[in-house]
Amino acid sequence: MNQPILPSGRPSGRASDQLRPVTIERHFTRHAEGSVLVSFGDTRVLCTASIEDRVPPWLRGKGEGWVTAEYGMLPRATSSRTQREAARGGQGGRTMEIQRLIGRSLRACVDRQALGERVITLDCDVIQADGGTRTAAITGAYVALVDAVNLLMKRENLRRNPILGAIAAVSVGVYQGVPVLDLDYLEDSACDTDMNVVMNDGGGFIEVQGTAEGHAFRRDEMNDMLALAEKGIAELVAAQRAALAQG
Amino acid sequence: MNQPILPSGRPSGRASDQLRPVTIERHFTRHAEGSVLVSFGDTRVLCTASIEDRVPPWLRGKGEGWVTAEYGMLPRATSSRTQREAARGGQGGRTMEIQRLIGRSLRACVDRQALGERVITLDCDVIQADGGTRTAAITGAYVALVDAVNLLMKRENLRRNPILGAIAAVSVGVYQGVPVLDLDYLEDSACDTDMNVVMNDGGGFIEVQGTAEGHAFRRDEMNDMLALAEKGIAELVAAQRAALAQG
Amino acid sequence: MNQPILPSGRPSGRASDQLRPVTIERHFTRHAEGSVLVSFGDTRVLCTASIEDRVPPWLRGKGEGWVTAEYGMLPRATSSRTQREAARGGQGGRTMEIQRLIGRSLRACVDRQALGERVITLDCDVIQADGGTRTAAITGAYVALVDAVNLLMKRENLRRNPILGAIAAVSVGVYQGVPVLDLDYLEDSACDTDMNVVMNDGGGFIEVQGTAEGHAFRRDEMNDMLALAEKGIAELVAAQRAALAQG
Amino acid sequence: MNQPILPSGRPSGRASDQLRPVTIERHFTRHAEGSVLVSFGDTRVLCTASIEDRVPPWLRGKGEGWVTAEYGMLPRATSSRTQREAARGGQGGRTMEIQRLIGRSLRACVDRQALGERVITLDCDVIQADGGTRTAAITGAYVALVDAVNLLMKRENLRRNPILGAIAAVSVGVYQGVPVLDLDYLEDSACDTDMNVVMNDGGGFIEVQGTAEGHAFRRDEMNDMLALAEKGIAELVAAQRAALAQG
Amino acid sequence: MNQPILPSGRPSGRASDQLRPVTIERHFTRHAEGSVLVSFGDTRVLCTASIEDRVPPWLRGKGEGWVTAEYGMLPRATSSRTQREAARGGQGGRTMEIQRLIGRSLRACVDRQALGERVITLDCDVIQADGGTRTAAITGAYVALVDAVNLLMKRENLRRNPILGAIAAVSVGVYQGVPVLDLDYLEDSACDTDMNVVMNDGGGFIEVQGTAEGHAFRRDEMNDMLALAEKGIAELVAAQRAALAQG
Amino acid sequence: MNQPILPSGRPSGRASDQLRPVTIERHFTRHAEGSVLVSFGDTRVLCTASIEDRVPPWLRGKGEGWVTAEYGMLPRATSSRTQREAARGGQGGRTMEIQRLIGRSLRACVDRQALGERVITLDCDVIQADGGTRTAAITGAYVALVDAVNLLMKRENLRRNPILGAIAAVSVGVYQGVPVLDLDYLEDSACDTDMNVVMNDGGGFIEVQGTAEGHAFRRDEMNDMLALAEKGIAELVAAQRAALAQG
Repeated sequence: MNQPILPSGRPSGRASDQLRPVTIERHFTRHAEGSVLVSFGDTRVLCTASIEDRVPPWLRGKGEGWVTAEYGMLPRATSSRTQREAARGGQGGRTMEIQRLIGRSLRACVDRQALGERVITLDCDVIQADGGTRTAAITGAYVALVDAVNLLMKRENLRRNPILGAIAAVSVGVYQGVPVLDLDYLEDSACDTDMNVVMNDGGGFIEVQGTAEGHAFRRDEMNDMLALAEKGIAELVAAQRAALAQG
Repeated sequence: MNQPILPSGRPSGRASDQLRPVTIERHFTRHAEGSVLVSFGDTRVLCTASIEDRVPPWLRGKGEGWVTAEYGMLPRATSSRTQREAARGGQGGRTMEIQRLIGRSLRACVDRQALGERVITLDCDVIQADGGTRTAAITGAYVALVDAVNLLMKRENLRRNPILGAIAAVSVGVYQGVPVLDLDYLEDSACDTDMNVVMNDGGGFIEVQGTAEGHAFRRDEMNDMLALAEKGIAELVAAQRAALAQG
Repeated sequence: MNQPILPSGRPSGRASDQLRPVTIERHFTRHAEGSVLVSFGDTRVLCTASIEDRVPPWLRGKGEGWVTAEYGMLPRATSSRTQREAARGGQGGRTMEIQRLIGRSLRACVDRQALGERVITLDCDVIQADGGTRTAAITGAYVALVDAVNLLMKRENLRRNPILGAIAAVSVGVYQGVPVLDLDYLEDSACDTDMNVVMNDGGGFIEVQGTAEGHAFRRDEMNDMLALAEKGIAELVAAQRAALAQG
Repeated sequence: MNQPILPSGRPSGRASDQLRPVTIERHFTRHAEGSVLVSFGDTRVLCTASIEDRVPPWLRGKGEGWVTAEYGMLPRATSSRTQREAARGGQGGRTMEIQRLIGRSLRACVDRQALGERVITLDCDVIQADGGTRTAAITGAYVALVDAVNLLMKRENLRRNPILGAIAAVSVGVYQGVPVLDLDYLEDSACDTDMNVVMNDGGGFIEVQGTAEGHAFRRDEMNDMLALAEKGIAELVAAQRAALAQG
Repeated sequence: MNQPILPSGRPSGRASDQLRPVTIERHFTRHAEGSVLVSFGDTRVLCTASIEDRVPPWLRGKGEGWVTAEYGMLPRATSSRTQREAARGGQGGRTMEIQRLIGRSLRACVDRQALGERVITLDCDVIQADGGTRTAAITGAYVALVDAVNLLMKRENLRRNPILGAIAAVSVGVYQGVPVLDLDYLEDSACDTDMNVVMNDGGGFIEVQGTAEGHAFRRDEMNDMLALAEKGIAELVAAQRAALAQG
Repeated sequence: MNQPILPSGRPSGRASDQLRPVTIERHFTRHAEGSVLVSFGDTRVLCTASIEDRVPPWLRGKGEGWVTAEYGMLPRATSSRTQREAARGGQGGRTMEIQRLIGRSLRACVDRQALGERVITLDCDVIQADGGTRTAAITGAYVALVDAVNLLMKRENLRRNPILGAIAAVSVGVYQGVPVLDLDYLEDSACDTDMNVVMNDGGGFIEVQGTAEGHAFRRDEMNDMLALAEKGIAELVAAQRAALAQG
């Protein structure tokens, strides 16, 4: 893939294949089995992993566990205040869509037999939003999940590690005709195409969700975007590893 | 793309690149501006298009219209009875995800300025489900939308046609290691990967939503699936045209 | 009862004691134990009967079953779009009133001991509305119920038939001073009195719900309406029998 | 109609055509424009009429008013505690059915043009239940309505009285094979047929809602029940007049 | 505490340390184990106590019971009609706050081990409101609770009385600069400070909830208000005793 | 007030009149007009102030503004996971009680005429809970409010400062017989009395909410607790000033 020169460049001045600064802060809060504050630039998401000794009704007695996710946004994570979903009486369509995506993505890296009859809930709460909250959430939730599973393995003396591999996610898109990596809010609200890609550390795709915002996208644009995503996810997996390597 | 020989074949005996029989029955009900019963094999979805002379609050006074969709499933469209969402007190996450997809897809083929300050609502209600309800819904809703817009153009003497082109959708997946087109329920519940693809009649992608169910999918599998989708959608667009050509 | 000559006649040109054309199409969908599309003229209701091996909490261990009904209307079954109840967050008063009526009516023809500890749910979904949706629903639901019970008797080798007799329903009213049978929407919205009558095939009354819309009705009008109902229901029971007699 | 001798008699010892003691206490509470505590034996319902200077959206600018009703039951009005609907998150089907009946019945005695652009809400709250709460509610609500309208006529100097005539309601049924008037809870839970009848003081029927509980009822039983209802309602209208005649 | 002379006096003409007339009518309704209509002047609250042989999930098998409360207001208890909470779809913040207060207060006088595995629910429904509904509710609910417990002791032969002592409540405030006892609505809506005080018959405080409405209040004002509350509650406890002494 | 020697001491080893370490971090997030992360020991609450140019319906055209608050708790702020209120379908009683308290408290320090027709919403979201979340929320929300108002004064050139003075809050209680300041979770769950006190910087009381958990509390205990609260709030006001003095 050629890296085309942006006519006027990205609003942030980043190269088209450049991630925003990524930070992964573990043990951000005290009670959860895993607790990670992940930042993709100004997007900050608190991801906690909670282990409970129960399974959903449809898994009772099957000897396997479950991984699920919930997503929320603090009312003033956004530039103007968003109504609190609890006050409005329920979760909206966007929230449900995102938390289903996070849950499916993380289940893809867990051996549910090895987990045993337990539920791990990944709560991803956006403290500050600047585009890419769902991809930051997946990337951070993976680290919280690993911390929780490591604790569980020690505490319960599990025979094998339920984690099958790493999972990370990034958005890609076509902005002013140019494929770019990791869109921030300014790009996200003006781009032609927006695609969220979830991959594992073996280079396999877990989820690909691409949406034409402005005009329909072509196969070659899709190929360029997927190549950017592969590059970005490799860097995110490295950042996850580095974070997990610290005590 | 080579068409591989299926070890034991598809449950339906179809070739890997073969759609189920598609029927598009216009004017299925009387009141709606557009009303289409679409069948992809045993999947049957009633799609109605309703025009209202109002716009959502955020579009007031902007001189443009809106296209939105709602999705529902009759309780016994499925092999065991599903609880009615109205009785349960609200729409679930799956429903919201699907109706958001349908709405986004159809908006991609509408010139909202040309539509003027009107809302077109596409109600897609599944009468019988056998896999692929959302792709059938998008394919049928397009035809209902065209019928409604044609009526509107006559009735309101619109200066230009708000329809920019055709939209259709199909699912593709990897079943027993083989990429296949238009999964039915048996395939859908046993496949490794499931991807819904929405395209326009110019061969552009509107939405691509791929999910690894069993194992992560590779770039080459993705390419095979996208090629199958292109073939299937060309056939669906032809079926839409044939239906619209009838009185 | 004399058949008075209508001053200007019924909008449809029917005689005052004439039903709309009635069709009863069995096996309309594939999954349900009973599935009937019933039409009273332009009113079309899909009635499915679903058997489940459970009973409501208050019947546990009592050796008897339950029959219940749910009613819905597709958003564009009506001449202008009605808001989807699932989207609005719950069923409205009219829906609840109607589904309670359908459930009570059908329970009147079932021997719940003979049914055993099972629930049969009758889902009545209006595809197209032109007045009389609840009476069409009851009439069609009876046929779906019989199909489901016949299946159950074969499958479970029941000792005796839980069906005690046939049930059908029709509306009657006073339109422009004249008692008429089976009101369509135009009559329904302009009539003085509207009465829904549910009867069994022995000529007994199961439900009588009469409402004065314009002015209060007199005993003689009531008698005339009941006589019309008796005539109409006899014809509906014959139509049910004819439908059930077909393979 | 012959008054048959009851084999074992009614639980209360009443004659088959005998109402329970009826009391109508006006001005029971202070704030409402009309406030009536009505008792049918041990059934006690507080009916208030509230006037508001607004109309529902669909009546704006039409120069006519509206009359509506809401029904509630205090949690311990019944012999075992019923869950509070506000705590359960909404009104159930029975409540909606009853309040729709009360509203329709009272609208039948109001000239909505004469009322002008106002809403009168009749709140009927059951303090103690012993069968027949809806008929007591309608009978009491009429008196509260008249008090409110009289106040309104004085206060606003209305040109003509919006009240067209009196409305009252009573239940009738077939208990142990015998038609009886004004069922109490013991009779109501054991009867074969239960019918609620709303009439005006001219002997016209406003609503007739009959339900076969045990077996289907015949025309002659229906005639007997309607005759009992006519007798009972004449007495109830007299009781309303007597109450309204007091200062 | 000095009793200051009010500049213009209280709207009701009461002395600053004078309660409104208090009446406590036991056995107001028939079904509940305890049923009390309490009046603080024009404020009238129906308090019922219901005993159920169950405990909340978190108390199962612990050998102790629970006491809880629910609060409601009839729509026209107030000078203009308040929307019915059941119709609005749930209890509001004020209702929840009040019923939590009533429940906590009454639990403070119950030995939950002596009660055994039972729930007593105190339903406090405001029939007419004129300020002080929550304090009247607590004062009346105590009497209903005692009646219910006495019945339970007889019926179940309890070994010891679960009632530990009496509980009553009153409001105090600063009105036009003067501390006053038992505010009515006129005072309540114009006062500077409003404080609800719950005490036991030993002079101990159970709850103190003071709110500055106009300006912040000082320690000396607080002391004056608490002294008024002590006086008022002593009188209320005497009224409770007198009521309970009657048959 | 004497400082009694604790028999076994507080779990944290603090003196009975000693606050936990307090930190107030301004500008914690970027979008809100005021954004403060406040910590009382391990209790951490994010408080944002959002200004909107609208007023609630009942204040339209009155030339004054409104201040309101919403409270939430991240699901894993607590030692075991709490269900998300948005997923449960609404805010619970505890949440409503707390956010009403926060709103009332902050309104007490705002001149709503000076604010003009605007709403300031204080969102208080608990990131980590260890007792005293509502008092930390009020203390932090005041600082966020001041930041927002200062911004508003600059931006809109307000003529006078709407802030009337400082507001802070602290909990006090009786733990093992000893009055203590600023209870943490261990103390809170084992104390005899728990009291939340909100004061202004003039030493006036805004809210006092005391609850006997174990036994009723006496006047002298109340006096001791209020004295502790006065001391604690003076320190909190100093911490607020210090935070606001920084850039």
